[in-house]
Amino acid sequence: MSRALYIGRFQPFHNGHLHAVKWILEREDELVLGIGSAQYSHTWRNPFTVGERYLMIWQTLKAEGLLNRVLITAIPDTDTRHSTWVSVVKTYSPPFDSAYTNDPLSRLLFREAGIKVYSIPFYERDKYEATLIRKLIAEGKDEWKKLVPPPVAHILVKIGGVDRLKEIYRYSR
Amino acid sequence: MSRALYIGRFQPFHNGHLHAVKWILEREDELVLGIGSAQYSHTWRNPFTVGERYLMIWQTLKAEGLLNRVLITAIPDTDTRHSTWVSVVKTYSPPFDSAYTNDPLSRLLFREAGIKVYSIPFYERDKYEATLIRKLIAEGKDEWKKLVPPPVAHILVKIGGVDRLKEIYRYSR
Amino acid sequence: MSRALYIGRFQPFHNGHLHAVKWILEREDELVLGIGSAQYSHTWRNPFTVGERYLMIWQTLKAEGLLNRVLITAIPDTDTRHSTWVSVVKTYSPPFDSAYTNDPLSRLLFREAGIKVYSIPFYERDKYEATLIRKLIAEGKDEWKKLVPPPVAHILVKIGGVDRLKEIYRYSR
Amino acid sequence: MSRALYIGRFQPFHNGHLHAVKWILEREDELVLGIGSAQYSHTWRNPFTVGERYLMIWQTLKAEGLLNRVLITAIPDTDTRHSTWVSVVKTYSPPFDSAYTNDPLSRLLFREAGIKVYSIPFYERDKYEATLIRKLIAEGKDEWKKLVPPPVAHILVKIGGVDRLKEIYRYSR
Amino acid sequence: MSRALYIGRFQPFHNGHLHAVKWILEREDELVLGIGSAQYSHTWRNPFTVGERYLMIWQTLKAEGLLNRVLITAIPDTDTRHSTWVSVVKTYSPPFDSAYTNDPLSRLLFREAGIKVYSIPFYERDKYEATLIRKLIAEGKDEWKKLVPPPVAHILVKIGGVDRLKEIYRYSR
Amino acid sequence: MSRALYIGRFQPFHNGHLHAVKWILEREDELVLGIGSAQYSHTWRNPFTVGERYLMIWQTLKAEGLLNRVLITAIPDTDTRHSTWVSVVKTYSPPFDSAYTNDPLSRLLFREAGIKVYSIPFYERDKYEATLIRKLIAEGKDEWKKLVPPPVAHILVKIGGVDRLKEIYRYSR
Repeated sequence: MSRALYIGRFQPFHNGHLHAVKWILEREDELVLGIGSAQYSHTWRNPFTVGERYLMIWQTLKAEGLLNRVLITAIPDTDTRHSTWVSVVKTYSPPFDSAYTNDPLSRLLFREAGIKVYSIPFYERDKYEATLIRKLIAEGKDEWKKLVPPPVAHILVKIGGVDRLKEIYRYSR
Repeated sequence: MSRALYIGRFQPFHNGHLHAVKWILEREDELVLGIGSAQYSHTWRNPFTVGERYLMIWQTLKAEGLLNRVLITAIPDTDTRHSTWVSVVKTYSPPFDSAYTNDPLSRLLFREAGIKVYSIPFYERDKYEATLIRKLIAEGKDEWKKLVPPPVAHILVKIGGVDRLKEIYRYSR
Repeated sequence: MSRALYIGRFQPFHNGHLHAVKWILEREDELVLGIGSAQYSHTWRNPFTVGERYLMIWQTLKAEGLLNRVLITAIPDTDTRHSTWVSVVKTYSPPFDSAYTNDPLSRLLFREAGIKVYSIPFYERDKYEATLIRKLIAEGKDEWKKLVPPPVAHILVKIGGVDRLKEIYRYSR
Repeated sequence: MSRALYIGRFQPFHNGHLHAVKWILEREDELVLGIGSAQYSHTWRNPFTVGERYLMIWQTLKAEGLLNRVLITAIPDTDTRHSTWVSVVKTYSPPFDSAYTNDPLSRLLFREAGIKVYSIPFYERDKYEATLIRKLIAEGKDEWKKLVPPPVAHILVKIGGVDRLKEIYRYSR
Repeated sequence: MSRALYIGRFQPFHNGHLHAVKWILEREDELVLGIGSAQYSHTWRNPFTVGERYLMIWQTLKAEGLLNRVLITAIPDTDTRHSTWVSVVKTYSPPFDSAYTNDPLSRLLFREAGIKVYSIPFYERDKYEATLIRKLIAEGKDEWKKLVPPPVAHILVKIGGVDRLKEIYRYSR
Repeated sequence: MSRALYIGRFQPFHNGHLHAVKWILEREDELVLGIGSAQYSHTWRNPFTVGERYLMIWQTLKAEGLLNRVLITAIPDTDTRHSTWVSVVKTYSPPFDSAYTNDPLSRLLFREAGIKVYSIPFYERDKYEATLIRKLIAEGKDEWKKLVPPPVAHILVKIGGVDRLKEIYRYSR
């Protein structure tokens, strides 16, 4: 029985992320999906709260029938106290054997802590990239809805996420 | 569609807690199970990390077939900055309509924030009480295994939880 | 022109506190009234938020015609990082020449920082003592209303402070 | 009886701010003037401590005869934990019915928390803008003294604020 | 080449601690002496700042000719976030191979992190016990001076430590 | 007997820093070498933990025979809460009479706190500059080894510092 950690900010969770979840589940029995930078929200880089992101991901995995293999959990950030970050990850995550992430700092910190790290092959990265999707939403271009799983689009609209992104986009540029 | 929050420390998750989950699910469509005091561990009152508690609960709900109705999430504590606690709960939890808890301070804070709060009927409280169960574990009395769901007992033993509790018990008295 | 600091928790502000304010104003031109432990609330020791305490004090000083000599400000606590507390006080308070307080730890910290500290003579301490007044409120004994300035009684009732104290009292004993 | 919150950083408090205070007081009975980013100082963006800003504002309102309608209070920042900011504001501020601010993020957060937000008409914004005034001070151009209320100029000079700004300006560019 | 960590609060550093240092140096090449609970001071349990404790220890090791084998460093506490404590120790301490401590919680946390832990034989514990020594100082009994290395007694008196302890003792009982 | 504080980030400690230590020791009896920004690491600006920096400095001072005149200590940063920084320095450092630093903000804060501040003459600054040395390491140019004391080069290599810097450099540009 293997259990791996897949960590990201998921702002928002898009088809590329879902593709990665399925790709990892071909290699591992169970997956801890760690929602990073948990305490941040309402910025251009991190517009959604961890609770909102959790709901988007949970509804998606439910629709995909994956809830009995994926454990969704919040991982708070340590700001620039990076040397303690892995211990915070280990506190908030159920025990895991290895980590999947493409973030270079996370990779460095996991490796220095003796944890095996794997890369995730990007899936049509020109389309499925969170910053790009946030930009489409903020600019009122509806094509973003095809880039995220249907439950993500549904919840994002319902919680007022489109208006929030438009507002943040206006003054963050 | 209703979604309620059920918050507790679950140190550890026992049959009384599982009974409460089922009782709430008779009244609500979905349940956010919030693991409180998330950042604490290795004390007599909070021996297990939030990640360890998450795994115990997830395995139990999986065995019970409840994962598609229950969302498990970590809720950090605000120490004695109680006036901001509800906003932290709202940050870490998916949106919810009402809260179930018997903790008097949580009840007070939710009520002052305009959130509907319900009590949970205790289920054989003389047997199913976390402090009592921790004491049985620490004193090496195996009857504790009948008071928690089988996956909880399995994981608690596997992660070294029995030894940890015995050690903490020795010097905390 | 002299300006002194008078620091306390004011849970709640009572006639003894008002007496102290007037006594200090006989000796000093201006007074900074620092509301300590600003970030705490909803406990037996600190039931009211700093904002609620501010309003009770402001309305009292307005009724007494003292607002043009007293500056009310919040002073957050540093938990047990006591060696930095004076620098936090100096950050949150307008500049002051000396400090009035009977709290032994505050006196020690001010003195070690080279700040002149004065004691405040107690005014009928058997009657005017915040812990005692909270107890009277929690036990539903209306005589507490004669122990605090009328605006304090009015606001305390209006913000639901009586119910909050009764609730906290019930489970804190 | 209405009480509104007017929040800003007031680095420093200038004639535009005073104009806004008077404009709001035409619409509201009482005003909570919240000094934001309270814990920061000694940077180009936030050169003055909250205590220094408090004194500048208090002396100005005293000279204007407004102390019996304005409650001055410190509001600490939550860094990028924006989802909890409104609850911190509510902790540090006396109760208020609505908020006046032109800051887009504050407007967004208040609105999402269900609080009514009003804009403030700018008053000769080309002259009365804090960044511009700090620049004039740092560059030794005395015309800044005409852009702030006399008590602000007096205190700013007295606490050594001119030298501090010159020093910070030198190495921050 | 071996380097071990010896961690304690050293409130104050006494002959028993010095004895332990020498005993460990018979077994190890180098020793990191970690001053724990670094951010606390001015309480009965932790009266001296980490800087004051550092000076007492440094002067003692200098007099003993041990400075070229012992590295003195501050270790901040994590309050009850115990699961991250070892990572904080590893951040503040130079790399070490094993740890010496008799504190049961530290032993538990080091062991769970896979770090070898050794006990230290107590040396005349009825005499050399920090709480007892603080009590003697606070009660004005000069025999405490024989229980600590001469440089500790000298510095403790010079920084006003005797008066501070007497003051804290008076109101902490 | 005089004791001065010399504060820096020492990322890494190079020949210019060692030259400064010796220059100060010609003027002062003892020196507290304060390692600033203690809690940060694994960034381009602060790649090494405070424990790693401590070891590099300690080994250098040992080789130079200076350990009986220099006290090495960690100084945590206060982020932008600058008004409390001096009190944190005073908590973590043994008592000192004056401070040596070229950092303009530190100079400002010390001066405002009434502490005497001296500048340090730069020693061949075009060669001995930490940012430049980090760049040489990251770009694999071995000449950096001549710019730092031999023990620093030895430890930096041993702890994997070259690989860490190369990795951080790659994604930080």
